Parts: sequence; structure tokens; C-alpha cells
Amino acid sequence: MKKKKLWGGRFKSNTSDLLDDFTESISFDKRLAIYDIKASIAHILMLKKQKIINELDSEKIIKGLSKILNLVQKNKFHFDKFYEDVHLNIENYLIHTVGNIGKKLHTARSRNDQIAVDMMLYMKDEINDIIKLIKNLQKTIIQLAEKNIKIIIPSYTHLKQAQPILISHYLMAYFFKLQRDVEKFKSNLNSVDILPLGVGAGVGVNYPTDRKYIAKLLGFSKVSENSIDTVSQRDYIIEFIFAASMVSMHLSRLSEDLIIWNTDEFKFIEIDDAFTTGSSIMPNKKNPDILELIRGRTAKIYGNLMGMLTLLKGLPSSYNRDLQEDKKMLFETIDYIKPMLIIMNELLQNITFLEQNIMEKMKTGFIMAVDIADYLVKKNIPFREAHNIVGKIVKFCTEKNKTFFELGLKQLKKFSKKIDNEIVKIFDYRYSIESKVSEGGTSTANVKKEIAYAKKIIERV
Amino acid sequence: MKKKKLWGGRFKSNTSDLLDDFTESISFDKRLAIYDIKASIAHILMLKKQKIINELDSEKIIKGLSKILNLVQKNKFHFDKFYEDVHLNIENYLIHTVGNIGKKLHTARSRNDQIAVDMMLYMKDEINDIIKLIKNLQKTIIQLAEKNIKIIIPSYTHLKQAQPILISHYLMAYFFKLQRDVEKFKSNLNSVDILPLGVGAGVGVNYPTDRKYIAKLLGFSKVSENSIDTVSQRDYIIEFIFAASMVSMHLSRLSEDLIIWNTDEFKFIEIDDAFTTGSSIMPNKKNPDILELIRGRTAKIYGNLMGMLTLLKGLPSSYNRDLQEDKKMLFETIDYIKPMLIIMNELLQNITFLEQNIMEKMKTGFIMAVDIADYLVKKNIPFREAHNIVGKIVKFCTEKNKTFFELGLKQLKKFSKKIDNEIVKIFDYRYSIESKVSEGGTSTANVKKEIAYAKKIIERV
Amino acid sequence: MKKKKLWGGRFKSNTSDLLDDFTESISFDKRLAIYDIKASIAHILMLKKQKIINELDSEKIIKGLSKILNLVQKNKFHFDKFYEDVHLNIENYLIHTVGNIGKKLHTARSRNDQIAVDMMLYMKDEINDIIKLIKNLQKTIIQLAEKNIKIIIPSYTHLKQAQPILISHYLMAYFFKLQRDVEKFKSNLNSVDILPLGVGAGVGVNYPTDRKYIAKLLGFSKVSENSIDTVSQRDYIIEFIFAASMVSMHLSRLSEDLIIWNTDEFKFIEIDDAFTTGSSIMPNKKNPDILELIRGRTAKIYGNLMGMLTLLKGLPSSYNRDLQEDKKMLFETIDYIKPMLIIMNELLQNITFLEQNIMEKMKTGFIMAVDIADYLVKKNIPFREAHNIVGKIVKFCTEKNKTFFELGLKQLKKFSKKIDNEIVKIFDYRYSIESKVSEGGTSTANVKKEIAYAKKIIERV
Amino acid sequence: MKKKKLWGGRFKSNTSDLLDDFTESISFDKRLAIYDIKASIAHILMLKKQKIINELDSEKIIKGLSKILNLVQKNKFHFDKFYEDVHLNIENYLIHTVGNIGKKLHTARSRNDQIAVDMMLYMKDEINDIIKLIKNLQKTIIQLAEKNIKIIIPSYTHLKQAQPILISHYLMAYFFKLQRDVEKFKSNLNSVDILPLGVGAGVGVNYPTDRKYIAKLLGFSKVSENSIDTVSQRDYIIEFIFAASMVSMHLSRLSEDLIIWNTDEFKFIEIDDAFTTGSSIMPNKKNPDILELIRGRTAKIYGNLMGMLTLLKGLPSSYNRDLQEDKKMLFETIDYIKPMLIIMNELLQNITFLEQNIMEKMKTGFIMAVDIADYLVKKNIPFREAHNIVGKIVKFCTEKNKTFFELGLKQLKKFSKKIDNEIVKIFDYRYSIESKVSEGGTSTANVKKEIAYAKKIIERV
Repeated sequence: MKKKKLWGGRFKSNTSDLLDDFTESISFDKRLAIYDIKASIAHILMLKKQKIINELDSEKIIKGLSKILNLVQKNKFHFDKFYEDVHLNIENYLIHTVGNIGKKLHTARSRNDQIAVDMMLYMKDEINDIIKLIKNLQKTIIQLAEKNIKIIIPSYTHLKQAQPILISHYLMAYFFKLQRDVEKFKSNLNSVDILPLGVGAGVGVNYPTDRKYIAKLLGFSKVSENSIDTVSQRDYIIEFIFAASMVSMHLSRLSEDLIIWNTDEFKFIEIDDAFTTGSSIMPNKKNPDILELIRGRTAKIYGNLMGMLTLLKGLPSSYNRDLQEDKKMLFETIDYIKPMLIIMNELLQNITFLEQNIMEKMKTGFIMAVDIADYLVKKNIPFREAHNIVGKIVKFCTEKNKTFFELGLKQLKKFSKKIDNEIVKIFDYRYSIESKVSEGGTSTANVKKEIAYAKKIIERV
Repeated sequence: MKKKKLWGGRFKSNTSDLLDDFTESISFDKRLAIYDIKASIAHILMLKKQKIINELDSEKIIKGLSKILNLVQKNKFHFDKFYEDVHLNIENYLIHTVGNIGKKLHTARSRNDQIAVDMMLYMKDEINDIIKLIKNLQKTIIQLAEKNIKIIIPSYTHLKQAQPILISHYLMAYFFKLQRDVEKFKSNLNSVDILPLGVGAGVGVNYPTDRKYIAKLLGFSKVSENSIDTVSQRDYIIEFIFAASMVSMHLSRLSEDLIIWNTDEFKFIEIDDAFTTGSSIMPNKKNPDILELIRGRTAKIYGNLMGMLTLLKGLPSSYNRDLQEDKKMLFETIDYIKPMLIIMNELLQNITFLEQNIMEKMKTGFIMAVDIADYLVKKNIPFREAHNIVGKIVKFCTEKNKTFFELGLKQLKKFSKKIDNEIVKIFDYRYSIESKVSEGGTSTANVKKEIAYAKKIIERV
Repeated sequence: MKKKKLWGGRFKSNTSDLLDDFTESISFDKRLAIYDIKASIAHILMLKKQKIINELDSEKIIKGLSKILNLVQKNKFHFDKFYEDVHLNIENYLIHTVGNIGKKLHTARSRNDQIAVDMMLYMKDEINDIIKLIKNLQKTIIQLAEKNIKIIIPSYTHLKQAQPILISHYLMAYFFKLQRDVEKFKSNLNSVDILPLGVGAGVGVNYPTDRKYIAKLLGFSKVSENSIDTVSQRDYIIEFIFAASMVSMHLSRLSEDLIIWNTDEFKFIEIDDAFTTGSSIMPNKKNPDILELIRGRTAKIYGNLMGMLTLLKGLPSSYNRDLQEDKKMLFETIDYIKPMLIIMNELLQNITFLEQNIMEKMKTGFIMAVDIADYLVKKNIPFREAHNIVGKIVKFCTEKNKTFFELGLKQLKKFSKKIDNEIVKIFDYRYSIESKVSEGGTSTANVKKEIAYAKKIIERV
Repeated sequence: MKKKKLWGGRFKSNTSDLLDDFTESISFDKRLAIYDIKASIAHILMLKKQKIINELDSEKIIKGLSKILNLVQKNKFHFDKFYEDVHLNIENYLIHTVGNIGKKLHTARSRNDQIAVDMMLYMKDEINDIIKLIKNLQKTIIQLAEKNIKIIIPSYTHLKQAQPILISHYLMAYFFKLQRDVEKFKSNLNSVDILPLGVGAGVGVNYPTDRKYIAKLLGFSKVSENSIDTVSQRDYIIEFIFAASMVSMHLSRLSEDLIIWNTDEFKFIEIDDAFTTGSSIMPNKKNPDILELIRGRTAKIYGNLMGMLTLLKGLPSSYNRDLQEDKKMLFETIDYIKPMLIIMNELLQNITFLEQNIMEKMKTGFIMAVDIADYLVKKNIPFREAHNIVGKIVKFCTEKNKTFFELGLKQLKKFSKKIDNEIVKIFDYRYSIESKVSEGGTSTANVKKEIAYAKKIIERV
């Protein structure tokens, strides 16, 4: 015969099996078990302190919960779909273990605020993990930037060669993008630092509880202000998936660049064999699958963000069962983003910049054009005119299939009489780079300043 | 020592474990195993027919594959993450079983076209299943419509009572929405009826293969026209998730209506206990969780659609590893939509319309207002004026807190002299309903016509 | 004859008209004109200070720019699609006005960093506006909460009546939701407080510029750290649209509640005629269109968030023209969210809570069930058992079609002997409410505390 | 004094100005005016035929409507925001022009079915236009494929060179992608071929109308079956935006390829000056902005799809004002996708394939590797082993920095004794291409077959 549901008092018949399968969440929310038990222990300690249950009962319950915690940690706890979710699985097992006294555990609380506290405890750990993973990636970027400070690459706009830059300058751009992501996760950490437990089904409870005490026990710095808001909001989850979307977006852009640099045509980088894969049919292939997967998985994270927002749009106030879906989207996002960060970090440590080939490829791009224009500006030609003159030189070269380097002074003078011998020095990538003296520019001095600043940031807690 | 990858010829070092975890798809693509084997058998039969491999070899390979098929069907095949995906797991096991001859299986094909054929075979089955599930739901709707043909409810616009309709008319609206979904899945079925196998890595193969023969063996009616397109497109998957989004959207709207009708304030329906759940804290609660979960899961399906489209936006041509993500989004969508259809079907069979209460609630809504206006139009008052007159009656009633039914003829005549005794018949919901003689309107005759037509449609293959 | 583009030096032929139409942004970026000019003036002042251009030239250019500013402010400036965007329109007009000297304006900057600074200046104003609008809405909520502190409504979970609460408690939940939105916009304000101007096309410039000086002139507190990051990132725009998505999501939920409360069946609220609309055919209709539009427009804002994220996924580094689309999505979001906030504020001031009717509707919901259970707990029955007993009472009432109020003590005792006369006081909503003494609960004392706290928050800058 | 709304009978006060601004749709739905009038004329003709209004009145009304039509076509009709939408603007002007008789126009219809018929008429025209634009693009592709049939390029997987193909084969892949888009729009055309007009506010009307007659007059082949479904569904709009998403996705992928091919490093194509743009700061730049904008605009179309789906998720049945947003998303999508198709078509006609450079770049890619493996298979080496052997050759070459072409027979024999002189012919791209004899492969014969087949398809109506 089918067991009776813990909430089954008013019901004639039990739920159908079909329904049990459809509504259960234990298959995925069991990962919250440890947090659920910890929150229950804190809850009981508070009930005891407030004399809502007596000392003896509370000790028995805590003993029972500790036993379950132990089972869970050893992977020996059996979760049963019949008990729907992690809360009822644990509560039911507790009652089974300690007897009727266990039925007192659910005094002054509801599953609605229980799931909220479980999620927040769980997310705290995960967010801290993720911040560490991003920082690791940032450290690798700093190391790469320091190690390769002498290597020049073209910068790109519109995927066309623009101007010469230090590869370190390029890399540091990602440091700063990632730093903004760190800030987002830190802000999210604040959002999960507010204890939700203790509001019951959303209106508060009939007991003289002490929520600040639970908060202290569980390490929350604040207590939620409004019970209705507490059980109905999932802002902290959406914020998380948004932060994950942003960091994955940044990783997807870095991946795209590296994929392009890894083509046979660019050949700017070599990825270590251990981080590439082959083809089942083409023996020649050595593919940057990792980078493609990072780029691709970004799409699924976005999908989860869209899903969460859509889930909540127009949802009537307070708790609705729709909210159960939040966990799947959150868990999946966490399971996606962490390996993406880890493996991007590993991969960056396993690429080599093919300097010689990069230099070869830069020859054809007229990437000193702005420098020549600026050289003319210094000869007192207004910028727009200087731009125009250099544009004509480029046009001439393209038609004659020549590079800047192949034009003599005589030919150059035809475009502007103000051009003189000095122009030779402009035809040097290094000169171009060191000329970028404006704050945030690519000169070596600037980039070193960036790196120094980055090192300071990374040390902040 | 680590095993060598099947494609590892050009590689110095093997992939890292980290990478293996990151790139593997076997944990989810193993559900394609049966299709993969069937496609391999068809491939071998073709190679034999075309004398690309000899009879003896082909027989051995087929025997080996059949053995694996058997293991898979009995859930006894061990999938190993090291072999990345379903294809290499099977191929590797084959080589292990039949020896070097097994290495001939991959002649004239690539994983790129293999995964495509597996997916299409799999999707065919799933789409056919889903069409059946929608049809079952449609049949239930027809039955409900027939059974409850006498029950009147208010129609709503802006969630305000509008005009009386037959509940059957309301229900049949969903029949037609679902019918459009059926058409979308049927069209999707055509998209997966084109054999992709046989194009190799995307450029065709160096063998005199006979793709039409494979198509015949596997039940495809066409063969793909262009190899590059074949390995790079996932249109059929996006189409599927789009169709699933549409049907889930329709289910979410039906759910929303039923949730509202299930409130204590509306009380239009009673859902059988077996299809509701209770609260862990509030003994009074009997909640429509199923409907909320259907509504909520729609959001995740949308997320997958967005994910798939984003995955493909701006993706360079032909195969990129990003495409691996398509499977997760497809499989999840399938695993979501099928139970949603099944359980909505079950639930509809377990709701009762609380006719008396519905009648009670209709009294206050002035829902015969249009009929009164039309009555005035027949007395030769232009519609816009008639509308204005009835508007004033409603205003009067609202201010005096009266219903139409409580106004006498004398009072009514104050709003228009043309009002006479005949107006009494208008104050009958039934009269209003049977007046809707226009095609597609809510009169009983019309609704019966709809039902008859629906029955014909449902019989079509 | 067609005019020559300002950047046309290297081009043989001019762009086609078709292309001009396709690529122009002036039709929408002209709203940035004022900011563009102000940034140009600051740029010139810096060039002068750094002696990059001489005093005379700078004065002439500033005079020219001031004239244009004046024209723009008076709506008399003619924007021409041929000049593509707001920058070139202004620069071209300047050259036209002040002659060749005007060509010096573009020294040491690029359109890439110009558009970034324009956007940030513009966004600062808009974000500040939006924060004010949210605060106005919060103030209205506080006023409503204070004014209606005595009105009781049912709280809902699963859209079923749950427990009695103060309407003020419900309203204050929205105060706190909106407060989180304010925080998001404030954080976004920090993101646009970093001067991007001065990095040229993304690598820095060849001039001894002083970006901190420009920052000071324009009111930025920081200067961007890395030029490549500066021109390629749009994080601040995505953040904005995310914050707008969150606030619109909150508004959509409030709208949904109010729409349901406005049904003929609930009748919890009356919306003033001036904030509803009628039907062209049904004279009886008075529809909550505003609330539906707020709910609906949320969807389009979400669409923009998805659009922005998708735009940037896998985009190669640094500037790509795709980024032009950011403006359309941002501007549309701004034009959507501001009226939504304004009109929700107005509407809230024009609704009346229909207290008597609400009380009527609460009778049937068994909403004191938890209180009865807690009453039993105080008689030393474990909560789970108490829950079960009350569940059986509810079941009994439902079957006999009775409310709690209609059961006598004798009958109640049949469910538990521990029930005694005291139970009468539980049958009072007010008792239930005042029992919710836990922090954040719905007791009047708690709600007043919430309101007092909210008033403090709202005063913060 | 403020004018009275046409539906204002029951209202004490008029709507506020604020509300008028918030709810109006005339600023964007005026583009439907012509269709609205045509549908009104058909409606009146039907009312006359059915003797619901008399001949004289109907003639006057039609005359009035024709006059308005004329004004609209000449852009002389003044739309007034006070009258909310296109329907009331026209109806009000009609009453103003023909007097009280005009008030009869709205007999037996509602704005809810009016907007539906307007949209469907409008969409029919637009869908037909778009199909033509796609076909034009397909024709250009066919022409390009024919013209460049001799040019070889590498195919790519993972953006790494894979195997040699004809550029025509690559191009034809897009023909087939676009063909699937055409089919989607054709299917959408069927969805808007069902007359919605005549169902009133969603329940049918009290008049003996003849909807089939209106359908005939307006060119619809069917009449909608269920009135509730008719006014509440927007499936046809979502379908449209989905089809637009798909075609834009295809264009975005083509754009990505062309952008990459246009880099200084690939240099596979040259885009005519008229279809590129320059930089305001870098005189060297010639950027593929068009392609970037096509890629970027895809994101906004996706956003609209997401918006539409979210709009409808969980929306209560029948008409809700949220649906007004559908028009903005549809119109914007139309205004986006059409120029994208036109300009991609123009651009394709203005690119040149730089054959010599492509050949140069192919040298380094080992793209005959599969052919060598297949050559070994024909020497009776199982495919997997052959794959392994070639993999080792590639590894050797990479380490020695050599191409295949630079290895002598002696060296090759070290990898497999079965290699003989014949292998020389494999080292020819042309040989590789012509070996791809399997259906759908890249051999010239196959590609010509594709082109011939495409030409047949394109001629279909």
C-alpha cells in the first residue's frame, strides 16, 4: 500500500505515480541535502533557545539530523522519489529514526523558506568557488602578459588589421573584463547573505522565534525584511545566471579570437596536443574543440537566463510551483561555468604565440597608417587632411600590390611635400607601440602599469 | 597507461583527463546507441552491395554490431567516457570483438554525418510519439467538449467577463491550437526524412557509394543534396524545439486559465485529489502544482530554443564542435514536453466543472451587454449609439449596485424609448449563446459542427 | 555629385545609397548629439591644455561646437543620413562652419571611443532618471501601505488562499523588490562612471593627452585602464538592460496580481475610470489595459537583453560594427521602462481596495488552518500531527460544504480532544495576523517597522 | 474639452493623457490603414448582401471609406493619438464624414477580429515580398556558383582546413539552407490564409453574417473555425519571426565566413569599395561593415522571437492587451530582414574570389590527408589503420615543417610499404575533388547536378 504524504491530511486519495514523477525534485535537489540539514540544526537550536521546544527533544532531533548528515556525506543516504524533495526525504527519515519527536522539526517553518535558505547556503559556496576560478584565470593572464611582453600582434577592428599592439595589452583587456565579472559575483554574494529562513509559508510564524540567532549560526549577516518577498523572489538566482552569462560571453569572445588565430591561415598560436582533438576521418585535423565548446556552452547559459526571466514574468505573487524549475537552471549553469573557467585557464597555459609568423602576417596590413597620419599632424596638417593623404598612399600601394616598406621617400613626397626622412622611423611597429603614451594605451610602459595595477586588484579579498 | 584515441595518429601526446571530461558526449548521446548501430548496419550493407568491402568482412561486422545492439537493448553495454561519444564507443567495442576487420566500418563516412543520421532516426521516433501524445490530448478535449456541451461559462477578454459561451467552445479553441502544433511536428518529420549519411566529413567520399540504398534500408524518403550543408545545418533540431515551444506555450495558457479557475474566488473547477498536492505547513492547501509546473517548464523549453539559435548565430560554416550542445538542448526538450502532454491529458480527465458556482459568478458581469446593444441595432439604432446606451445602463447599475436582472422595463425605457418587453428574452445566457449564429461562433449548432470537424481531422494520419 | 566621405581617402568609389541606408545610425543616434558635443568640447580643452592644438584654433572650434549645441538644443540642427552617424554629422558641420581648422577636432580620438563616451554621458542621465522614477513608485507604495494598514487580505501561494495578511505587508514586499532594482541601477551607474574617451581606435594615441583632465571636465571619477577593452566592451549596456528586465519583471508580477484582483470574481480592487479602457463592441467592459501593457512590455525588454547578449557572444575582440545594434536595444529599453514606471505609479494612486468584498471572499478559504495547527502544537501535539488533524477538519468541512466558523466545539473535539474553548479566538483574522510576531512577519507591529525602515532607505542618496 | 471615446458609454471620466500615450498604437499600427479600410469595405459589402444594413447606407459608407483610402494612399490622412489605434481613427473619420450612418460600420465585428484581419492581409504582402527577396538571393548564388565553378577552396571544420572543395559547392550549401527558409515562409503564408474577421469579440455575433463571402472578397481560402481561438492566437506572427530568425541565422553564418575570408590573413575575397566602409581614424581600413551589421541584426530578430514567445507564455485565454506588443515585434522584424536580404544579395554580386591567394593558403593544410587514407584503403588497409598512418605522416611533416608535396616516395614508404608511385596523383586538389563521386559530394559533376536541381526548384511558385 502506498505511504501517506506528510501533508496528506485533507486529501481523500493519494497522488498518482504519474504525478509523483512529474512533480518530484529529489532527483536534482538532493545536492542541497547537506545545507538542508545544517539549516535544520540551526533551526532546532533556535527553537530550543527560544524555548519553543524543550532541550531533550532538541537534542534528540539534532542527534538524528547529525546521523543523516553523516549518511549523506558518505553517500549512503537513500533518497526516495515518493518523498518529493530533499526536505521531506530528510524529515521523513528523521521521524523514522527518532520517532514522533521528529515531527516537531517543522515547527515554525515551511518548505518555502527552507528551500530558500538551502539555496543561499549552497550558492555561497559555489559563488566563492567561481570567484576563485576566475581569479585563477586572471592570474594566468597576468603571467602570460608578463612572459610575452615583447611580442607584437596586430590589433583588429572589424577583424581587419588595425594597429600594432603588445599581445600583453590584448591579454590584459581580458583581465579587466573578468574583473567586472568578479564584481558581479561579489555583488551576488551579498544577495545571498540575507537569511530567508523563519518566515513560514510567507506570512511569518506564530512563535517568538529569533531569526537573527539563526542567521548568526549559519553565517548570514542580515535577516530578510518582508516575508512575502522572501518566499516569492528569486532575484539572487537570476543575478547569478546573469553573472555567469557575462563571464561566459567574455570567454566566448576570447575563444573566438583564439579559434581564428589557430587557423592555418593566421597561425598566430599553437595549442598543445593535449588540448586539441582529432577527426575520425581526416588524419590531418588538430581541432580546437575546447574553445568551440566554451563558445557553444555560452549559448546554453544564455538559454537558462532567458528561461529564469520568463519563468518569473507575470507570475502571481508569493510562492508558485513554477519556481521549482529555478534549481534545474541554476544547477546546470553552475555545472557548465565551472569547467569552462578551469579548462580555459589550463588551455591558456598551453598555447604558444608564433611570433615569427605573426610578424610575417603584419607586413601586409598597412598598420602604421595612423602613425603616419599623426606624423603629418605634427607637421601641422589638420588630422582629417592627414587621414586623407595616408588613405591615398594606401590606395596606391594596394593598386600596385606594394607594402609601405617598399615605397621610397621620393614616391612618398608625391602625396605630401611635408613628408621627410624622419618617416623611416614610423615604419617600425615598435615605434608605433611606444608612441601610444596616452593612459591605457599599448606602450610598454602603460602595459606594465596595467599589469602592476592588476596584481594589486587580484590580491583584494 | 592511457589508451590511444582512434583518431590519434598525428598527436604526440594524448588528451588530458580534464579535456576528456570536458569534451565527452557519451554521458548523454548514449541514448542514440540503437540508432547508431542500425545506421552502421545499413552502411555496411551498402558497402557490401557496392563491393567496397567484401561479403565475408561485412558479415562479420554485422554480426559484431548485432551483438552490440543486443547488449545495448539489454542495458548491458558499458559506455566509456574515454571513447568520447557513442560512435567511438561502439566502433571501439566492435574492433575489440571482431578484430582488425572492424576498422573497416568507418570507410566512407565520418562522425559528422553519423551523428546526423543517428539524430534523425531518433527524432523520427520521438516526433511520432509526440504527435500521438498531442492527439491523445485532443481526443480528451473532444470528449470533454461533448460531455459538457450544456455548460455555460463567461468568456473573458482582459480577464474580465465578456460574453456567455459554451465551455465546449472554449475547450475546442485548444483543439485547434494543438492542431497547428501537430502540423508543425509533421513538417518537422519531413525535415528529418532526408538521409544525411554518406557525405563524409562534409565534402563527399572517394567511394562509389549508393546513398539512396542506405536511405531505403533506413526508411528515409530522400537523400541530402549538398554535403557541406548536410554536416553544418541543425535546422531540423531548431524546428523541433520551436514546435515544442509552441505546444508548451499553448499548454501554459491552458494551465493559467485552469489555475485561475481553480482559485477559491472563481471556483469554476474541482481537480481530483490525485492531481493536486498539499502544503507542508498549511493543512488547508490543495494546490494545482501540476499546472504550475507545466507553465513553468515552458520557460525552460523557450530557453533551449534561444540557446539553439544563439549557438548557431555567426557560427563559421560546416561542422564546429559547438554543435555538440544541440543534443543536450534537444534531449532535455524531449524529456520535458512528453510528460507535460501526458499529464495535462490525465489532468483534464480529472477535473469537474462546478456549473452552479459558475452560473452564480456570471450574474454580476453584465455579460449580455452586447446582446442588448444588438437588440437596439435591430430597432434601427446605429451600433455605436446602441453601444453608448448600454454603456450608460451598465454605469447606472454599477453605481446603484444592481444587476441587469434587477432593472424593470420602466427604468430601462429611460435609457432608450425603443426598449420594449422583448428585452426580457435577452436576459437569458442561453439566448445569447444560441444567437451566435455566425460561423465559428459559440451557438450549440456551431460548436457541434466544430466537434464533428475536429473528429474528422483527428482521424487523418 | 555625391559628397566624399570623411574617411574616404583610400577608396576608389563611394558607398552605394543602399549601403548608406543600411549602415546609417543617425536616425537613432542623434539623441546623443548634446553629449557628443559636450565631449568634443572637453576633448578640445584638453588638447589645448596639453598644447596639442593652439589656443586660437581651440577657441574657434569651441565656438563652432557651441553654435551646433545651440542648434541641436533648439531642434534646428539638420542631421543628414549621408554623414552616417552623429559624430560625422557634427564634425562635418563644424568644418563647414569654422573651415579647415575644424579638421583638427578629430586629433587623438576615434569614433570608437567617441561613441562610448557619448553613451556613458547619456546613460548617466537616464539611469539617474530611472532611479528617481523607481523611488517615486516606492514612495507611493509606502503611502498606500500606511493608508491601508488596517485592511486584511488573504496571502496566496499557488494562487490559493493561504493565510491572512495585511495588504500593507503585501505592498511592502514590492518596496523591497524595487529596492534591489535601485541597487542594480546604482551599480550600473558606477559602470558608466569610467571615462572611455582618449583611447583612439583601441590602442591609445600618439599624443601626450591628459585623460584624467577630460574625466574631470565631464564628471567621470575614473579613466578606463585598457584601450582594447574600452572600445570592445558593452558590459554597461547589458547591465542596464538586465536591471530594466528585473524591474519590469517585478512590475509584471504586480500587474498580474492586480489584473487577477480586478476580475469580476475577485473584485478586490477598483481602478479609477481614468486608468482603464473600454471595448469597441462590449459596452460592459472596463479593462485594466495599462496593467496588461506593463506585463506585455516586459517581454520586449527581455527580448532586448537576449538580443544584446547574443550580439556579443563569440564576437571577435575589439570593435566590430555589430555593436552598432546596441544603441537600438538600449534606447528602446529606456523608452519602454520609463513610462512603465511612471504609469504604474499613477495607477497605484488610483486604485481602491474593496475591503468588504475581500472579507467576504476570505470566508471560504480555511485560511486560519495554520493558526489552528499552531494552537494544537501549543497543546503539545507535534507539528506534523497537528497539521494532519487540521487537514482532516478541512476535509470534513469541504465534504459538508461548511466553513470553520460553522463548526461547533463539540464537532471540533471529535478531531482532537485537546481542542477547547480558546479556539474561538483563532477564528479571527486579526488574531492570526497579530500572532505573526517573527521578524518580517505580517503583524501590524512588524509591518510598521518595515515601513519605518523603508522610509530610511528611501532617503539615502 | 476632451473628446469622448467611441467606447466611453459606461465611463464617468475620460482616460488621462498619460494613459493615452501609454496605450496608443496608432504611431505604429497606421501602416495597416490600407488593409483596415479594405477589410471594412468587404465587411460592409457582406452586411449589405446579408441585408444586415441596407443598400443606401452601405453605399454611403463605402464611399466614405474609399475617400479615406484615397487620403491614406496619398499620405494625407491625419492620424490622431486620441483615437488610440488605426481602427478608431478610421471609424471616427468616417462618422465625421458620412454622419451617423457611419456608426453602423462596426455592426457585427470587434477590434479584436479587425486587427487580426488587418495583420493577415498585411503579412500576406510582406511574406510574398520576402520570399521573392530570398529567391533573388538564391539566384545570385546559382549565378556565382556557375561563374566560379573552377575555383577550389579548402572546406573547413573547426575553422581548420579540411578537404578541397569547389567554391560552388560551398555556395550551393547556402542555396539549400535558404530553400528551407522559403518553405518556412510558404508555410507561414498558409497560416495567414484563414479569415479571422467576423467572430466579434471572440464568441461570434448575433447576425446572419456570411464569413465565406468576406473571405472570397479579400482573397482568403479558408475561414477560422473557432472564435475564441481566432482572437487569442498569434501563432502566425511567432511563426513569421521564427522563419525570419532562421533566415537571419543562415545569413549570419555566411557573413561570418565572408568576414573571415576578408581578413588580411585569409585574403580569399575582395569586396568592392562601394560595399565597404572606412575608419575615421585609421586611413588603412576598409571594413566589411555590411556583413557585421547582418550578423549583428540577427541578434535583434532573435530578441523579438524571444519577446513574442514570452509575451504569450501563461497569458490567460482570449484577447489581452499584452497582444498589442506583437505588432512592434513583427514590424521591426520585417523592417530588419528585408534590407538584410537585399543587401546580402547586392554584396555577393560585388565580391571577387582571389583564386591565386586561396591556392597559396591551401598548400600548408595537408588537405589531401583523407584522400591518402582512402588510397591506402584501396591497397586493402583497414580505414582506421590507414587513418593512423596518414596521421603519422602529418605529424612528421609538422615537426619537420614540411608540406606533403615536399616528401619523396622513399620517405613516404617508411610510413607504409604499400605506398607507391600512384600517390603522386593524390597530391592534386583537382583529383581529390573529382574523387568525391558520392551523391551530394563536391565533384564537378555532382555540383553541376546540384545547380541544375536548384534551378528547377527556384522556378516553382
